[in-house]
Amino acid sequence: MSLLSVGSVAFDALETPFGKTDKIIGGAATYITLSASYFTNKNNLVAVVGDDFPQEMIDILKGRAIDTTGLQIRPGEKTFFWSGKYHNDMNTRDTVDVQLNVMGDFDPILPTVYNDCEFLMLGNISPSVQKKVIERLPKRPKLIMLDTMNFWMDTAWDDLMDVIKLVDVLTVNDEEARQLSGQYSLVKAAAAIQAMGPQTVIIKKGEHGALLFHGGSIFFAPALPLEEVFDPTGAGDTFAGGFIGYLASTGDVSFNNMKRGIIYGSAMASFCVEKFGAERLFNLTIDEINERVAQFVKLAAFEIV
Amino acid sequence: MSLLSVGSVAFDALETPFGKTDKIIGGAATYITLSASYFTNKNNLVAVVGDDFPQEMIDILKGRAIDTTGLQIRPGEKTFFWSGKYHNDMNTRDTVDVQLNVMGDFDPILPTVYNDCEFLMLGNISPSVQKKVIERLPKRPKLIMLDTMNFWMDTAWDDLMDVIKLVDVLTVNDEEARQLSGQYSLVKAAAAIQAMGPQTVIIKKGEHGALLFHGGSIFFAPALPLEEVFDPTGAGDTFAGGFIGYLASTGDVSFNNMKRGIIYGSAMASFCVEKFGAERLFNLTIDEINERVAQFVKLAAFEIV
Repeated sequence: MSLLSVGSVAFDALETPFGKTDKIIGGAATYITLSASYFTNKNNLVAVVGDDFPQEMIDILKGRAIDTTGLQIRPGEKTFFWSGKYHNDMNTRDTVDVQLNVMGDFDPILPTVYNDCEFLMLGNISPSVQKKVIERLPKRPKLIMLDTMNFWMDTAWDDLMDVIKLVDVLTVNDEEARQLSGQYSLVKAAAAIQAMGPQTVIIKKGEHGALLFHGGSIFFAPALPLEEVFDPTGAGDTFAGGFIGYLASTGDVSFNNMKRGIIYGSAMASFCVEKFGAERLFNLTIDEINERVAQFVKLAAFEIV
Repeated sequence: MSLLSVGSVAFDALETPFGKTDKIIGGAATYITLSASYFTNKNNLVAVVGDDFPQEMIDILKGRAIDTTGLQIRPGEKTFFWSGKYHNDMNTRDTVDVQLNVMGDFDPILPTVYNDCEFLMLGNISPSVQKKVIERLPKRPKLIMLDTMNFWMDTAWDDLMDVIKLVDVLTVNDEEARQLSGQYSLVKAAAAIQAMGPQTVIIKKGEHGALLFHGGSIFFAPALPLEEVFDPTGAGDTFAGGFIGYLASTGDVSFNNMKRGIIYGSAMASFCVEKFGAERLFNLTIDEINERVAQFVKLAAFEIV
């Protein structure tokens, strides 16, 4: 089934304990759509860049069969830029620079060829833009998933509440879940967020895995213990893209299938962190992905006798 | 098979966001042996208390079929005392007071009726005392497990290295594993610790579950997401006691059985945190434990199709 991903396509400059990059391609929607492209073959993208954005990168997206009709290229303007530096533990980072550029007044225009949207992934952008996307679709998708962050909780609370109540799946990290709900216990936090609208809440815990709350059920997904995390940028978006891409490819939104989606998403995220930026997502093979998923199965399997 | 647990039996005074206690019964060996008592019926204890230690508590241990022949009661002396206060997040705590008392010169005397020791659990005490226990046993147990903490890494490094190389299983939390190994990645940390001696390393991550490294294999065990953690004191010891108690009850030290042991240990720890101190471990039923284990199975189960 078709997936529409909306979010930032950007330049990132990164510094980790392993090195630093000049401007490389980043942005939530880049990671989401690349990750999803390994599962569903109807991948539509709505985003905005400036005319400084390299054609070569657009060709990489097209090469992954991503439909870029909805990628606005604004002449004479510059692409969104983010620069960040990771601390030694790789779990925390400082933002060094943000230049909104074209993202400052992003209007999410939906090409009519995207009208059949069945799965919608709203990457981390302003809640009012996220809501516009839902309103502009002629038919409500089968499943709407939304990612957000503490910045919007601090600056756009009412807008965030307005859009959260419209979605099926919310994905946040543990700190964001606590801030959003005012609850320390993640069980209570998820229940409070479910009461805001989404029936399904995914709490990402990085190296500690993820929790999937669906109705009254809970699934605890492991993360693959890694020898080295080279660059965590985009891991959460890659996870989300793998999750919703898998759901879209199967058309099945049951709890059991969401559990599989979490595992596929976690496998994709484990690739993402192996290289700087999104590079590792350009040329994966299905065999590599299946082999990684098999590692998760082995990692989590036990049998009570 | 028989289990010998060695460690502290103590008085604790605790303060959590939910309330505070006067002196209640604590100590690593108390939690370990109570937890193990639900699995193996040959539970031997070596520890030391003062004559201020209540007979009522010794009767509770005996009521759980724990052999207290090795519990030294020193006339005219006082029991080890620890007082701690938890922060609001329950993951960190401050030590308010420590009075070593009888623990200051604890000599682990092993009654000859304990000579058949097949499983040995060395709770968190001085590494030199832990080593003495191993040396005093007439026959090497089938499995030796050791718990330790950052305090011994800071103050008794050489003694710690001397005893670590003699054991089969080391259990530490993630911070301790990083300090002990000098590695941030837990995969690298476990490999470094395995090179110090133990073939098996269990890294406890509290609410994030636990990692079991055994030879070249890894198992990621979930923790039960809880609505409320009332008092985390003793959860790690309860986990360890459930783990080794399960192994001792089955006599099976294979990787697959250790995975089951981790699940039983985690289930026991999830009870421990529900009340102050060790109280929740006094009167559990096998049905309650099996029901809790079934929750773990449900929590972690997924199937790739």
